[in-house]
Amino acid sequence: MNRNLFSFLTLIIFSMQVHAQQSLWGGQEITSPRIHEDNSVTFSVHAPNAGEVKLSGEWMPAEGWTPGTVAMEKNEKGVWSFTTEPLEPELYTYFFLIDGFRTTDPANPFIVRDVASVMNILIVGGQHADLYKVNQVPHGSVTRRWYNSPTLDKDRRITIYTPPGYESNTEKYPVLYLLHGAGGDEEAWITLGRTAQIMDNLIAQGKAKPMIVVMPNGNVSQSAAPGEGIRGFYKPQFMVPNTMDGNYEASFPDIMKFVEDNYRVKAEKANRAIAGLSMGGFHALHISRYYPNTFDYIGLFSAAILPNQNVSHEVYRDIDGTLKQQMENGYELYWIGMGKTDFLYDSGVQYREKLDNLGMEYVYRESEGGHVWRNWRVYLSEFVPLLFN
Amino acid sequence: MNRNLFSFLTLIIFSMQVHAQQSLWGGQEITSPRIHEDNSVTFSVHAPNAGEVKLSGEWMPAEGWTPGTVAMEKNEKGVWSFTTEPLEPELYTYFFLIDGFRTTDPANPFIVRDVASVMNILIVGGQHADLYKVNQVPHGSVTRRWYNSPTLDKDRRITIYTPPGYESNTEKYPVLYLLHGAGGDEEAWITLGRTAQIMDNLIAQGKAKPMIVVMPNGNVSQSAAPGEGIRGFYKPQFMVPNTMDGNYEASFPDIMKFVEDNYRVKAEKANRAIAGLSMGGFHALHISRYYPNTFDYIGLFSAAILPNQNVSHEVYRDIDGTLKQQMENGYELYWIGMGKTDFLYDSGVQYREKLDNLGMEYVYRESEGGHVWRNWRVYLSEFVPLLFN
Repeated sequence: MNRNLFSFLTLIIFSMQVHAQQSLWGGQEITSPRIHEDNSVTFSVHAPNAGEVKLSGEWMPAEGWTPGTVAMEKNEKGVWSFTTEPLEPELYTYFFLIDGFRTTDPANPFIVRDVASVMNILIVGGQHADLYKVNQVPHGSVTRRWYNSPTLDKDRRITIYTPPGYESNTEKYPVLYLLHGAGGDEEAWITLGRTAQIMDNLIAQGKAKPMIVVMPNGNVSQSAAPGEGIRGFYKPQFMVPNTMDGNYEASFPDIMKFVEDNYRVKAEKANRAIAGLSMGGFHALHISRYYPNTFDYIGLFSAAILPNQNVSHEVYRDIDGTLKQQMENGYELYWIGMGKTDFLYDSGVQYREKLDNLGMEYVYRESEGGHVWRNWRVYLSEFVPLLFN
Repeated sequence: MNRNLFSFLTLIIFSMQVHAQQSLWGGQEITSPRIHEDNSVTFSVHAPNAGEVKLSGEWMPAEGWTPGTVAMEKNEKGVWSFTTEPLEPELYTYFFLIDGFRTTDPANPFIVRDVASVMNILIVGGQHADLYKVNQVPHGSVTRRWYNSPTLDKDRRITIYTPPGYESNTEKYPVLYLLHGAGGDEEAWITLGRTAQIMDNLIAQGKAKPMIVVMPNGNVSQSAAPGEGIRGFYKPQFMVPNTMDGNYEASFPDIMKFVEDNYRVKAEKANRAIAGLSMGGFHALHISRYYPNTFDYIGLFSAAILPNQNVSHEVYRDIDGTLKQQMENGYELYWIGMGKTDFLYDSGVQYREKLDNLGMEYVYRESEGGHVWRNWRVYLSEFVPLLFN
């Protein structure tokens, strides 16, 4: 080899300089979080000029909607640290407050967006939390693509999980339609919900049938998640206009047609499930009732139950009558999950009373905690094994 | 409707409380950045307790590897702001320094990861930067999936772009293999590189042929991008071991076999291109030379040219002989892009001298600037229209 030619060692040296430089700018040499053998976790952040640094993590008790915090301690190098007690297995989000300024952990590039907020994530493994990890199992594929909705007269973005082996055989698969909550979009279940990991792991364990999971965008005024559509980068908001006025339910057949035309699908009631969280539970309730012979499996996760009394869209007419029709047509599973401290708890009680009065059978799962992703991941993990058996 | 049942208005009120709460925690009511009519941009951040806040953006002149900064000004509400001069059309990254602490903009959830750093992004539209936007054009699909590499004896993650219409016809397509740099992975081109947007837009404009773009992971010791594989969440590093020792080049036929077995591909030299940036340019150089009758189109973007003189893998033997063989076999395009201030500039000069001495034809494109994504997006946008004509 020509000795005069550039040796790649030069690049390595340059890269070390870049990193030395970066460390001046962001404490990049710090490793945070560090999960210890006993599942205690140490968080660290380099902020030598700060007067006060706090950590807020999802494992801490919150006061209402106000996250808990704990003070971190500074060492002589300006690094603030805190070590938790051993944590229960879970996927947790966390952030720092540096002199009151909320920020992510600069040593941890793993970040999730929830509506307009970004937070770091970590997984303390074990038990149900192992379902959220990428394990040494066959992996399905996750595709972001676009479909046309004639009813809404626009192209819309959608996320599709196909199970391991889908591409290499000719079988047809059942389908779970999985709907997000207010402020969410077609990215919510695949990021915060860890849907691909949960599905891969449950399928590998033989606890779930291989199935296609369809994660559409339930905000009819959006083409796509913020940042993924023609509006470009704009600040996501919690309540997107027209998400709960009946138009999504009315347009849902466009999604099913797209899926059934484009994937090898068992296009029949016995092989269709629909579930959603919060607003997505509302959508799942109304879609399954309005198309009352379409889904054999319905899942309402911390569902927002009924529409604003002012909305008058056709899909909200005759709720009792369409529920009765759904009951008469028959279904395999009507699954309701709710957390004990969910602010929607009472409306869930009332909805179950309604179902009781109608004589509609359902399975009820009450969990600890409230209106949080940690419950929705658990509900998904428990619901999916019950499907298509 | 039963008036006693929960009205969804309650949820909306709760959500407003959540947001009021969030604004206490992170200045969520601020809109930042704001791009004005004249392409000046205002950045704002709520940090009432900070003594000094700086903005660092990619449009600012850097000193070597040290990003430029500018001081922001505080108002009576503790909001720090800075308005730029009108900016040239471009996708820019930026971050804040709050009392020296590097952080992202809490009002902007659009974030990209580059190795272990995260930064906000914004797009100032116009000219070439419009290629980086999601426009009202047909969109291709982006799939993250896994393939088996018998040579490396592991399953590996890969990102695949299929062009608009791929799913709804039966045509075969040409393929561009697009390789990332050191510290990158199968996420790099699709996130920082805006590959899906560039492809959608060039295809819609009739400037590029519809093609499949394959974005593999070039770090043979990794199964997947950090956070996406069985190692879980760990801090990404710039130089991953064994990325430049010949094993990636040796295993590359596994990727091509996977693509040609799983996609409707024109599996012939005239319909194969390979390109990469930095380390990916190194890989593209060696793969195209070692398999000298496989690719009709080769793109070296700010390429790291030659291996460390200590590596002795078979694929690095007889570089001149295999280049000659590649030349004799013929190719349509050997495209080299380099920035004037790239630290690899001199090695590029030497490599072009080598090609000149061998009599190998190439197209040389010299741009302003250095070893940065902004150049690689431009190179991709210029290279792709030259393919498969």
